[in-house]
Amino acid sequence: MPNGVRDVFKSKLVDIEAGEPIIIMNPEDTAELGIREMDRVYVERNGKNLVAIVQESNTMVKSGEVGVILQIQQELDLKENVEIEIKPASRPHSIDFIKRKMDGLELTTDEITSIVKDMANRALSRVDISAYITAVYINGMNMRETKDLTMAMVASGERINFGERDVFDFHSIGGCPGNKVTPIIVPIVAAAGLLMPKTFSRAISSAAGTADIMESICNVTLTSEKIRHITLEIGAVLAWGGAVRLAPVDDMLINVEYGLAVDPHSQVLASIMSKKKAVGAKHLLLDIPTGYGTKAETEDIARKTAKDFIDLGEQIGINVECAVTYGGQPLGRAVGPALEAAEAIAILEGSAGPRSVVEKALSLAGMILEMGGVARNGYDEAQSILKSGRALEKFREIVEAQGGKKNISSSDAPIGKLSKKISADKSGYVNFIDNKSIVKIAREAGAPYDKGAGLVITKKAGHPVEKDELIYTIFAEHEHKLKSAEVLAHRLRPIRVENMVLDHIPTIRKI
Amino acid sequence: MPNGVRDVFKSKLVDIEAGEPIIIMNPEDTAELGIREMDRVYVERNGKNLVAIVQESNTMVKSGEVGVILQIQQELDLKENVEIEIKPASRPHSIDFIKRKMDGLELTTDEITSIVKDMANRALSRVDISAYITAVYINGMNMRETKDLTMAMVASGERINFGERDVFDFHSIGGCPGNKVTPIIVPIVAAAGLLMPKTFSRAISSAAGTADIMESICNVTLTSEKIRHITLEIGAVLAWGGAVRLAPVDDMLINVEYGLAVDPHSQVLASIMSKKKAVGAKHLLLDIPTGYGTKAETEDIARKTAKDFIDLGEQIGINVECAVTYGGQPLGRAVGPALEAAEAIAILEGSAGPRSVVEKALSLAGMILEMGGVARNGYDEAQSILKSGRALEKFREIVEAQGGKKNISSSDAPIGKLSKKISADKSGYVNFIDNKSIVKIAREAGAPYDKGAGLVITKKAGHPVEKDELIYTIFAEHEHKLKSAEVLAHRLRPIRVENMVLDHIPTIRKI
Repeated sequence: MPNGVRDVFKSKLVDIEAGEPIIIMNPEDTAELGIREMDRVYVERNGKNLVAIVQESNTMVKSGEVGVILQIQQELDLKENVEIEIKPASRPHSIDFIKRKMDGLELTTDEITSIVKDMANRALSRVDISAYITAVYINGMNMRETKDLTMAMVASGERINFGERDVFDFHSIGGCPGNKVTPIIVPIVAAAGLLMPKTFSRAISSAAGTADIMESICNVTLTSEKIRHITLEIGAVLAWGGAVRLAPVDDMLINVEYGLAVDPHSQVLASIMSKKKAVGAKHLLLDIPTGYGTKAETEDIARKTAKDFIDLGEQIGINVECAVTYGGQPLGRAVGPALEAAEAIAILEGSAGPRSVVEKALSLAGMILEMGGVARNGYDEAQSILKSGRALEKFREIVEAQGGKKNISSSDAPIGKLSKKISADKSGYVNFIDNKSIVKIAREAGAPYDKGAGLVITKKAGHPVEKDELIYTIFAEHEHKLKSAEVLAHRLRPIRVENMVLDHIPTIRKI
Repeated sequence: MPNGVRDVFKSKLVDIEAGEPIIIMNPEDTAELGIREMDRVYVERNGKNLVAIVQESNTMVKSGEVGVILQIQQELDLKENVEIEIKPASRPHSIDFIKRKMDGLELTTDEITSIVKDMANRALSRVDISAYITAVYINGMNMRETKDLTMAMVASGERINFGERDVFDFHSIGGCPGNKVTPIIVPIVAAAGLLMPKTFSRAISSAAGTADIMESICNVTLTSEKIRHITLEIGAVLAWGGAVRLAPVDDMLINVEYGLAVDPHSQVLASIMSKKKAVGAKHLLLDIPTGYGTKAETEDIARKTAKDFIDLGEQIGINVECAVTYGGQPLGRAVGPALEAAEAIAILEGSAGPRSVVEKALSLAGMILEMGGVARNGYDEAQSILKSGRALEKFREIVEAQGGKKNISSSDAPIGKLSKKISADKSGYVNFIDNKSIVKIAREAGAPYDKGAGLVITKKAGHPVEKDELIYTIFAEHEHKLKSAEVLAHRLRPIRVENMVLDHIPTIRKI
């Protein structure tokens, strides 16, 4: 390098988006500046500046050039081949706070706030966030820290204000396939005069989340203004939370958690509760399905989870009640977005079954009505609202307000045209339905992306079955997905039919 | 998407290098394939395939396109706009093993081997490696795991074989500025007839590593064949380990550790020892500087560190001895690549000082001679080799074999032409020299990148000083770096001059 240090570089626009603010430098230049990969630098142009993380490349940039990715081009309004200044910056303090959690220490409110802020403004890399997730997974957070984390996550995003009236919310922590109670509960509660702006995330590993179910019949991508407006008008909304920036830090965390296949307990608490707080919820009913294949596999875990949500609710001013529900097999018969929409709407239309779905929806809706003080016997009140047709009417208002068909009915759900019946290969009883295999088959058939894909179970646990009798049907939108779901179905055998006597161990005869 | 699932895509070449095998897909296509960011996929073209990690982008690729980065272009021999097949792949098992370490479990040999293999073939992302580092930092590894880790790291890289003769090695764990004993010890040991193929890493946070010192006078980037050849010919080499792939996984780990500013203890042990094992070392002397500002700040930590290296050495067949040395202030006077080279060569040429450097080098060289059974009194033998000029001669052979000047002398070291003298602002004694501030000033002056930059300390701890007397000199190659080092020097005041009475607390008079 002929003329001393070079801290002015030429921009090279690089058509990359990244989860972190990266610039790309030639190793010759980083050595010269005394910095390394993963170090932070200030990037400056015309008085505007930001902090970026350095990555090295020999091939992408020559010495004297700095590669800038899309976010940085936009934020600094950069063109190709203009002068930008690069100066070493120090590491964000929040990395030291993550280190403190690694060392097993309790973090202060300020430290937690600083970590969340640095995630929100993308000063932390995914390597840092991974270390944070791992440290919190191993060393945990106490209730005070979890509260601070929740409130910091709320502060990092948008909030929706519904004015004076109490906001009610409902959440299922998931793991039970076919759990389509939300589209039944929400209109019952709204019909009873309570405010319920229900937001939800998309299915990550399941066959259908409420977002996917509702999206099969109407729009769920609403602005926060629209969510506010519809809720105040109709009493409820069924909207995808991802479209509004409620606790946006959560997306980054979930992305890393998904990659590592870990959910630190306190992070799950904060993630769920921050979104409730962001919509101003005063009352929350939490559904905790328990049983093999759910998230809370035993009742002990379910009760412990319930206690933690109730405690955290107390800390942040949300009155939480929990229902531990049976989730050891799919709820009802339908699994998959449109199939579940059809089943739910049929119940709103007056169908008496599947009984397990009706009973669960009425029980939970009833609990919310009692929390809201609008019924003494919530179950009976919920049932009378359902029977009167007011719940169906309310549901239709919501769907229409969200751009769906007027007077939607269960036959409007766009169920896949292709199907394949699966029959029992022997007589006996259904003694076990494997939730996880059911979900895999539905996903192989195309759910949740293909809204019409999924399956409908004819024989549930405990049912007697004859050889060659139908046990379930796979639905799909595309022939090759149907085929590959069928192959998987034969391999996984998610519904096990056995004789009542499973095995016979004969007495050992003495000779 | 009109015609069913699309698993054949058009390649879009993206001029990116990344530490992990990334492909970029449009979110529409990932949803359709039922995958998410961070998921693994098989990328296939003409029968060749590899596993890549998915990143999503709306702007970089349209639906139907897959962005492929440089590594993948090369490995699959891809052109622009050719058909490639993408299929979901499962997560590497090693992520489950990392999870087991998060859960505080002991990992089996196979699990550790699998983690290291997956790092080596880049199946693990930096998010995964960060989780691994954090989990090992928090939950630790026992000696059995550390041994397996070390051996797996050795197996992941190249090994150099020196035949029948015993290989000797020396390593300083660092943290003491000016620690230029290696270029003195190595030729003494080689002159005594022992084999010492010394490899080292570059300075990360220091002002000069042995690589930087030697690079100021000769080439240190040697092939493994060259390292083998020079060592067998001359008895020793002084080579940068980064040029040969000894335990290449280490670079990825160090990169992430550096970002997080953590070094898990067992990882440090494995990192150092795997490189010794890879060159077939039978005997290793470890220098553990202790004192304020070093890596082992107290003697207790130093002794615990020594014990762990000795134990690990026993497990992997290396005879380890340790020297705990005083590192509470810089060793000798020079700090910076060429300045340290000059100081070390002057000692080889017969200079009696700085005495601390001479004494440390002879003590350590002597210990190695005793380990090798070539001397009863190692110190005396080392001293006689030094005095006889045989060490200088050996050093010159090494430098010449590595492409340096024939008959190199201390005056050949390319010391920076610019300098600035720093004087005492009062009379007193030097009562403290802050290692970390010394390093910062040397780095500000340009070290280790500018080989001629650094500083030379005139007054060490305990020395009496008059006001305006010279205490140290800063050297640099560039005017503006000299200036900015001078500014930093006045701010940090690394060499503190005090009267012997530091403070006077008067008796409180009773009234």
